[in-house]
Amino acid sequence: MTKLVIINFMKAEIIFIGTELLLGQILNTNAVFLSKELASIGIDCYYQTVVGDNKDRIKASFRAALERADLVITTGGLGPTSDDLTIECWAEFFEKPMIFDEAVLQAVKARFAKANKIMSPSNTKLAYRPESSLVLPNPAGSAPGIIWDVTELYRATSKAKGLNVNSKKLVLTFPGVPREMHAMWKETAIDFLSKEIHTAKKLFYKELKFFGIGESSLAERLQNLLDLEDPTVAPLVSEGECRLRIATKALNQEEAFTKIESIEKQIREKAQEFIYGQDSDTLESVVGKLLFEKQQTLAVAESCTGGLISKRLTDISGSSRYIKFNLVTYSNESKQKFLNVTSQSLESFGAVSEQVALEMAAGIKELAKTNWGMAVTGIAGTEGGTEDKPVGTVYLAIVGENFKEVKKLQLGNRSRSDIRWGTAQEAINWMRQILLSEKN
Amino acid sequence: MTKLVIINFMKAEIIFIGTELLLGQILNTNAVFLSKELASIGIDCYYQTVVGDNKDRIKASFRAALERADLVITTGGLGPTSDDLTIECWAEFFEKPMIFDEAVLQAVKARFAKANKIMSPSNTKLAYRPESSLVLPNPAGSAPGIIWDVTELYRATSKAKGLNVNSKKLVLTFPGVPREMHAMWKETAIDFLSKEIHTAKKLFYKELKFFGIGESSLAERLQNLLDLEDPTVAPLVSEGECRLRIATKALNQEEAFTKIESIEKQIREKAQEFIYGQDSDTLESVVGKLLFEKQQTLAVAESCTGGLISKRLTDISGSSRYIKFNLVTYSNESKQKFLNVTSQSLESFGAVSEQVALEMAAGIKELAKTNWGMAVTGIAGTEGGTEDKPVGTVYLAIVGENFKEVKKLQLGNRSRSDIRWGTAQEAINWMRQILLSEKN
Repeated sequence: MTKLVIINFMKAEIIFIGTELLLGQILNTNAVFLSKELASIGIDCYYQTVVGDNKDRIKASFRAALERADLVITTGGLGPTSDDLTIECWAEFFEKPMIFDEAVLQAVKARFAKANKIMSPSNTKLAYRPESSLVLPNPAGSAPGIIWDVTELYRATSKAKGLNVNSKKLVLTFPGVPREMHAMWKETAIDFLSKEIHTAKKLFYKELKFFGIGESSLAERLQNLLDLEDPTVAPLVSEGECRLRIATKALNQEEAFTKIESIEKQIREKAQEFIYGQDSDTLESVVGKLLFEKQQTLAVAESCTGGLISKRLTDISGSSRYIKFNLVTYSNESKQKFLNVTSQSLESFGAVSEQVALEMAAGIKELAKTNWGMAVTGIAGTEGGTEDKPVGTVYLAIVGENFKEVKKLQLGNRSRSDIRWGTAQEAINWMRQILLSEKN
Repeated sequence: MTKLVIINFMKAEIIFIGTELLLGQILNTNAVFLSKELASIGIDCYYQTVVGDNKDRIKASFRAALERADLVITTGGLGPTSDDLTIECWAEFFEKPMIFDEAVLQAVKARFAKANKIMSPSNTKLAYRPESSLVLPNPAGSAPGIIWDVTELYRATSKAKGLNVNSKKLVLTFPGVPREMHAMWKETAIDFLSKEIHTAKKLFYKELKFFGIGESSLAERLQNLLDLEDPTVAPLVSEGECRLRIATKALNQEEAFTKIESIEKQIREKAQEFIYGQDSDTLESVVGKLLFEKQQTLAVAESCTGGLISKRLTDISGSSRYIKFNLVTYSNESKQKFLNVTSQSLESFGAVSEQVALEMAAGIKELAKTNWGMAVTGIAGTEGGTEDKPVGTVYLAIVGENFKEVKKLQLGNRSRSDIRWGTAQEAINWMRQILLSEKN
C-alpha cells in the first residue's frame, strides 16, 4: 500500500498550565476538546505538556514547544489571581513590554455590571497583554486570551537557525475553564487557524464501537489490519468498551471515504457480531434509535444502579419519545408497593435474586404500560455483600410481550461506581441485542 | 513567613504514551490517579508529557524527562499489538538487548487458560523486556511493566555530566488501562518507591469546597491569602464548583495540620457561607450525611434530569438509609398518574412551570411517604425550547412538612449535559441549605 506524502502540515503543541493538573485535582478534559478540534482541521499534534504555575518551568515549556511546533496553544493561567502567569510569561519570553488595553477593561467592567457585581481592582490585570499581540476575545468569561504571531520575534532568537523561511510561529492562549475555552475556540480561533493552514490534506477517521470483546481478542481477529500504514487501524479502550479507529489523511471526504470503507468492510467481516455502532454512537443512543424506529417504549426499574440507566437513556435528546417513566426502587417496600414484587420472593430468595429481578421487570412493564420492562437488582457495595452474594452480584431482567429472561452478572473486585457502570453497560447492550434479534 | 527548606525530594515526570490521547479519543484519567499518588508520597512532578505511538518521539520524550527528573513513569504501549512500543523504546534508548522471560510467558498463558481462551502467538511479546530490568507484575491483566534502575546506564551517557553522585534514575512502565495500572501501582510500585525516597517531608493538603461563588469573587475575598508561600492557597474550578487547596510540606501530619488549620480558619472567616464541604465531600455526600443524622428521608421526581439526581444521591454507599424510592416522570401522563399533577396545571401553565414543579414535589413526597419531596421539570434541549421557555429553563421544587418552595433556573447557552448537571447541582445544594437551616 502506498504511503501518502504529507505536505506542509502545520504542527501544533498544547501546553496545559496549572499546578492543579500536576496534583491530579482536575481531569484534563481540555486535552480531549483541543486534540479533537486540531485533528478535525488537519493540524498534527505530536506532544502535549502539562506544567505547573511556575514562571521558569512555564517558559522552559514554551521554548521546547516552539522548537518543535509552528503553533503553540496554552490553556490556563489567564485569570486575575497571582498564580495566573501565562500572559506575563509570554511577554518575558520574547522580552516584550505589557500594554494596557482600555477597551478590554471596559468589556470586563461591563460583564461585572451586567451580573450586578462590582469589579474588583485585581481584574485590571486582564486588560494587559504583550505589545504586538492581539486579543482573543472571551465571550463566556472575563479573562481574554491572546493571538500572537511571533514568527519574526522567534526568528531573531538563536534557536531559530534552522527555521524554514516559510515557517510560522503562532501563539494562542486560552483559559482553563472548559466552557470559556470552547466558546473562544469556536468564535475566533478556529477561523483564524483555518486561514493560516496552507495544507491540502486533512485527517479523516471513523470509529467502530465494540461491546463484549477485549482489546487483545479483537487485535487477534484483525492482526494484519492493525499493521496497515494507510489507513491506520488503532484499537482504543475506555469505560469497559473497545473501539477501533480507522484513520487516513486525504484531500477530501470522498477520497477518505473510499479508503476507510474498504478497511471497514474487512473489519466487519471478522468481528461484526461485536460491533454496536460507530463514531458518536453510544449504547444508549443505539437503543434509543431502535426503540424509536420500532415505535416501542421502555421503562426501567432500578435498584443498585439508582437511576444511572435512566440517566443514560435520557442523555439522548428526544428520548421522551420512548421513555415515559422510570422507577428507582431502592427499598423492599417500594419494590412490593409499585412493582408487585411478592413478599414470598423477597423472603425466600432475597431482594437480590432472579425471581425479584423478573418480578420487578414484569411490574414496571405493567405499571408503565410499555412494550419493554427492564429491571436491575444487585449489590453495588461498598456495604451489603455476603458470602453467597458478594459485592458485584447483580441480576438483570428484561420482559417484553413474548420475552422474559434474567441474567446474573458477577462484577466483583471493582469499585461501587465501576459495578454500577458495568451493570448499566450490560443492561443497555442486552436490550440492544434483544431489539435487533426481535422479528418486526 | 519562613519558607520551608525542602530536602532531597525525588522529582518525577510522567509520560503518557498513545496516539489516541493526542487525537482526543480518550480522557487521560491516569493523569489524575498518578499525580495524586505521587503527591501523597511526597514526590514532586513538574512536567507531564503526552506523546503518540512513534519511536523517535517516544525516545525524545524519555531523553527530556531523564534530564529533568529522577523518576520517569510511563503509561501505555505495553500490549501485544504492533503499536505498543514502550518497552522496545526503553531498550533502544539504553542500547540494551531484550531478554525473554519464560516465567512471564507461563503467567500470561495461565491467565488465558483461566478465562478458557487460547493465547495467540502475539502475546509472546509480553514476555520480553530489556536486560537488567525487573518485572513490574500486572495482577489485573496480561501485560506486565518494568522497573528499571538506569542510574549507571544513564551516568555512562554524555547527558549525565552534572549528575549528583547521590542521584538515582528510575524507570517504571504501566499499561494505559486504568484498572490494570491502579492494581500494579498499589501492589508493587508504591512500596518500591516508598523505599527509594530519602525524604523527610511530604506534601499535605486540604481542600475546601464551595458552591455559589465564582473563582474571581472568591479570590477577591481572600486576596492576601492567595499570595502566601507556605501553606499555599490555590483556587481550582471544575464542574461548576470552586475549590481551594491549602497545601504544605511537613515532617508529619501534626505539623501540617497546625499550619493548615490556621489558614483554614482565616478562609472560613471570609467565605464560610459558600463552603459546603472539604476533600472527598460532594454535594450529594453532604446531603446524605445530613439526612442520615436527622434520620430523614428524601424522594425525588425528575423530569428533565432523567435520573441524574437519583443517580448522584445513590452514588453514596449506604444511601439506602435515606433514599427509598425515586421517580423519573418524563411524560405528562406519568406526572398525572403517579404524582397527582393536575390537568389544569398542565394545560394552563405547561409541564415546565412553577405549579407543576410544586405539584410534583408534593406528589412524590406523598407517594413515597418521605420527609422531603424534590422535583425538577425543565427543558434540557436540544429540542423543546420556545420563546417563553427557552432551552435551559428549569423549575425546581422542594416540599417538606413545613416547607414548600419553588425556584426558577435559567441555564441557557449550555449543552444538554451541562444543563442537566447544573440543575442537579442546584437541586442538591438547595436541599443541603434547607437541611442546614431547618431547626432540629
